[in-house]
Amino acid sequence: MSAPSLRHIEAAHERIRPFVHRTPVLTSRYFDQRLGARLFFKAENLQKVGAFKFRGATNAVLSLSREEAQRGVVTHSSGNHAQALALAARIRGARAIIVMPKTAPAVKLAAVRGYGAEVRVCEPTLEAREAKTAEAIKETGAVLIHPFDDDRIIAGQATAAKELLEDVPDLDLFLAPVGGGGLLSGTALSTHYLAPQTRVIGGEPQGADDAFQSLKEGKILPSVAPQTIADGLLTSLCERTFSILQEHLEAIVTVTEEEIVDAMRSVLERMKTVIEPSAAVPVAALFKGEIDTEGKRIGVIFSGGNVDLDRLARLMA
Amino acid sequence: MSAPSLRHIEAAHERIRPFVHRTPVLTSRYFDQRLGARLFFKAENLQKVGAFKFRGATNAVLSLSREEAQRGVVTHSSGNHAQALALAARIRGARAIIVMPKTAPAVKLAAVRGYGAEVRVCEPTLEAREAKTAEAIKETGAVLIHPFDDDRIIAGQATAAKELLEDVPDLDLFLAPVGGGGLLSGTALSTHYLAPQTRVIGGEPQGADDAFQSLKEGKILPSVAPQTIADGLLTSLCERTFSILQEHLEAIVTVTEEEIVDAMRSVLERMKTVIEPSAAVPVAALFKGEIDTEGKRIGVIFSGGNVDLDRLARLMA
Repeated sequence: MSAPSLRHIEAAHERIRPFVHRTPVLTSRYFDQRLGARLFFKAENLQKVGAFKFRGATNAVLSLSREEAQRGVVTHSSGNHAQALALAARIRGARAIIVMPKTAPAVKLAAVRGYGAEVRVCEPTLEAREAKTAEAIKETGAVLIHPFDDDRIIAGQATAAKELLEDVPDLDLFLAPVGGGGLLSGTALSTHYLAPQTRVIGGEPQGADDAFQSLKEGKILPSVAPQTIADGLLTSLCERTFSILQEHLEAIVTVTEEEIVDAMRSVLERMKTVIEPSAAVPVAALFKGEIDTEGKRIGVIFSGGNVDLDRLARLMA
Repeated sequence: MSAPSLRHIEAAHERIRPFVHRTPVLTSRYFDQRLGARLFFKAENLQKVGAFKFRGATNAVLSLSREEAQRGVVTHSSGNHAQALALAARIRGARAIIVMPKTAPAVKLAAVRGYGAEVRVCEPTLEAREAKTAEAIKETGAVLIHPFDDDRIIAGQATAAKELLEDVPDLDLFLAPVGGGGLLSGTALSTHYLAPQTRVIGGEPQGADDAFQSLKEGKILPSVAPQTIADGLLTSLCERTFSILQEHLEAIVTVTEEEIVDAMRSVLERMKTVIEPSAAVPVAALFKGEIDTEGKRIGVIFSGGNVDLDRLARLMA
């Protein structure tokens, strides 16, 4: 399977540039001292809809033909991709149908509706959501936009790393979290094309370490009953992301739930910025001590900042 | 009493520029829509030591003669000024003695010591801290650096507003919180000199509304048993700050504790940035509806971000 080329990523960047934030690069004397390194955090928690997912969704929706856009888009997601696709569709003036499990928090349904999308609620099973999605496609002809198994999505997510590499030259290491692998494979591709000497490392929760296991075994091992507070990282790799990671990734470091919460707390306390648990995973990987950070220049993607305040309060208490 | 001139503020800015962060200006589509305005937040919560106080302290310490610097500096504070002065003194290579009440949280004492200052603990009364401070001065000849009753401090704090006015022209309104009045009078002066058409408004907790009362009565009414979670705003005005505010301030808007917490929550949730309760006061003032915000361009100083996580968790729960 051929991965998105540099030209694809550059075209994605041109396409989405008017609609996405060029998010700031944050630094922290505290983290630098703690790790003996220079750290550069790409603040996608400050991206529109609060996550990098808006980049891929926007690229996918803007890549549709006029005829496709008239039919609209559909996806199933209860996470950041749902809101991202809803807002991207609104920008294009396209209809969006988001299939969400009835167990999703009311606030998330409201957020997706707030971006003008139609929410269709289903039972919280894989079968139910696939059936509901198929039904929507049959009824409206909507184009399915998968959250990561899509080159347009991967090329869009790759623009976050591209921006950081443009802003901060000569990185030694680049870390991002891995769930389905859209962000991490995009990061690996941009780095491969633009800074081939920079090594790319994924961070993954031990309680959802299917990517770690898959790369170790050389074949995709699906995530079985994953358990982690990093709710953006529950999904398994697909062939598309697996093959990119197999070719371009140096390693995956797995972390415990306690390490994730500790990293999130440190970022909140020291950098005064809110990241969601998934975004704290690469920070936790750095703190773990398995990666030699001494004297290194290290890029990290803060993948998102969507954590509701009640949950944040519980995690910080 | 003559206030710091534009030349004083410009000189302060040149003096401290190599040592302070030029903090970013944050914006928020959510807040803009909620208020029908364009908002520009000067993120002094991302300043060194987590508060604007570092500007004034640095200006004061760098303004000392060599002979004064050799004697060192002293202050009494359990708040952001303590850490700010400690770090500013370290930059100058000067000794710092910080008198703190024994009731101050251990983490704050540790933070001040972490910046290399000597902490002297006293009983939590005005008499005790003044006695302890006088003792330190007598013993070491240290120079007292008051947290706000000092033109060098006010000129330093004024640089935060100066930077925002440089970055964002044509503001209609400029808001900052008021405690002792160092930040607000500095903001009022910079605005008077650099953008005289811009109106300046203070935000103050109802539970510590001595500045509001003082300006209404035309004389300083000290803060008596103030009660507010905005722990940076407990102090009363001094003649120096009162006279500047009397001349250059348009109004003070007071807010309830609930309004402060609500504003803090909104900033955390929508902007993903941590501000301390004192910094939320001007935001709460804007939300209150007493200020006509429609179509306006509004600057706000996020004065600090120092709130410990346990407290944050309690406030957000």
